[in-house]
Amino acid sequence: MSNCHGIVVGMDGGGSGCRVAVARVENGAVGRVLGRGQGGPANPATDFQVALDNLRGAIHSAWAQAGLPEDDLPKVRAFAGLAGVRDEEMARRVAQALPFVNSQVVEDRLTSVTGALAGENGSVAPIGTGSFLARQTAQGVRYLGGWGLALGDDASGAWLGQQLLRQMVRCFDGIAPHCDLSQQALAEFNHDHARIFRFSSSAGPARFAKFAPMVVEAAKQGDPLGHELMTRGADYIVAGLAALGYETGERLCLSGGLGPHYADYLPAPYRDAMRPPKGNALDGALYLAARGAG
Amino acid sequence: MSNCHGIVVGMDGGGSGCRVAVARVENGAVGRVLGRGQGGPANPATDFQVALDNLRGAIHSAWAQAGLPEDDLPKVRAFAGLAGVRDEEMARRVAQALPFVNSQVVEDRLTSVTGALAGENGSVAPIGTGSFLARQTAQGVRYLGGWGLALGDDASGAWLGQQLLRQMVRCFDGIAPHCDLSQQALAEFNHDHARIFRFSSSAGPARFAKFAPMVVEAAKQGDPLGHELMTRGADYIVAGLAALGYETGERLCLSGGLGPHYADYLPAPYRDAMRPPKGNALDGALYLAARGAG
Repeated sequence: MSNCHGIVVGMDGGGSGCRVAVARVENGAVGRVLGRGQGGPANPATDFQVALDNLRGAIHSAWAQAGLPEDDLPKVRAFAGLAGVRDEEMARRVAQALPFVNSQVVEDRLTSVTGALAGENGSVAPIGTGSFLARQTAQGVRYLGGWGLALGDDASGAWLGQQLLRQMVRCFDGIAPHCDLSQQALAEFNHDHARIFRFSSSAGPARFAKFAPMVVEAAKQGDPLGHELMTRGADYIVAGLAALGYETGERLCLSGGLGPHYADYLPAPYRDAMRPPKGNALDGALYLAARGAG
Repeated sequence: MSNCHGIVVGMDGGGSGCRVAVARVENGAVGRVLGRGQGGPANPATDFQVALDNLRGAIHSAWAQAGLPEDDLPKVRAFAGLAGVRDEEMARRVAQALPFVNSQVVEDRLTSVTGALAGENGSVAPIGTGSFLARQTAQGVRYLGGWGLALGDDASGAWLGQQLLRQMVRCFDGIAPHCDLSQQALAEFNHDHARIFRFSSSAGPARFAKFAPMVVEAAKQGDPLGHELMTRGADYIVAGLAALGYETGERLCLSGGLGPHYADYLPAPYRDAMRPPKGNALDGALYLAARGAG
């Protein structure tokens, strides 16, 4: 038998790019990483063919870097976590199109949670442009939130930015009093009604999220609106954790670009339970591939 | 001179259709309506050519019904209030493309306010799929709100529906307790996570607004969530009126499909000041055309 039985491939893909790693399995765990590759967007719900092309390119780069025989590629065990894989049908279509005999495809929520906890129990709140919460117990993983900006994604960057701009127009209209932060947001639009209107008619989550760092910074400086928004975000995280059955003291990872910024607005027991994520979604994919490989 | 000096044309256009009326001016006011026409969507910001074609068709129907000489059409004074006319440049482009020597084009906000108040002072809250507020005084008209669903349009049908669905997913997630209304909303999605997610990823204001009648009805039946949402909408109207300088007792028109439903949630002095609108946006366009005609 070739050495391909001790090798796994992990994949992470989303709207901004994809990453692939080839690793050796040692004692049933992920061992040395032999090769890495990366490529463009790989959300198969957005564009199936582009996602597959980008993944295939990254797979071949990683495999070449690992220096393994080309013929062995299809025989290894592979695991992919990709944004946009919301049902079994999509997972099967992607798995069949990948160059592996044995591959599993899931939504990147699972690989991101598994990467952060490295298989241990605990809760994760990946908070970037969007947001969701998850809790891993012996019974498996339960998710909460992640509905998108129109219905949820509370505490996310898009949500923080949208809440800031909502308050900004209330101040502009004279319904609420201005503060430094609302004035700063208005200055971004040159105090121009038409510009604000054009933005509000067309902006998606990513453009709203561009205002999130302004909120984080203002809150640090003591701005009342910034503080209120960060506190509302933290309250949502606490309420979501409670709904997931979180018990005081359990490991808690607030990951993503914004997650760690909520630490100061959480009650002390949550703050004390916070741990940095053990790894990212690509680490999670390798972990799940290795576990599958036994 | 032909009798066209005593004739005016009024136009009202938006995303769902356009209407045109030809009327006689009597003693400087709008007199008998001689002809009416209607047509498809006429929002020039959405599709300029379609808007113009639909308006022209409706103009010629109305003119034919009025039985006036065809040669006189370009000579009459015309006034159009159209959705999507947000700047002078767009107004001029439309005016030049209409078949009148003397036509004025504005956003339909002005014709709708003018129609509701028939030139008198007072405040108007047109609340349908979207919302805005306006106050007419001797100094002119001042507007508030109308930023679109992402940043404002509070109290509107789209806002009511979105708030309902936001609360529904919080109940689904176990963050908030269910009530009859949240259960009813969930039943519309067959309690299916994937359906809710798909809706939230793609729905625009009109689709959110379809849930507004459910909120209005539940509130009437005493549902706590329905009551809370209608009260929050009414609070926004009161705060917006205050910011516009509204004085107790001034004429107040809550128009549009939803406006009148807020009456029960307003403080008594506002309820007592409520008057039905005197006319619609087409009446407003005729009024402004006639006033222009002297």
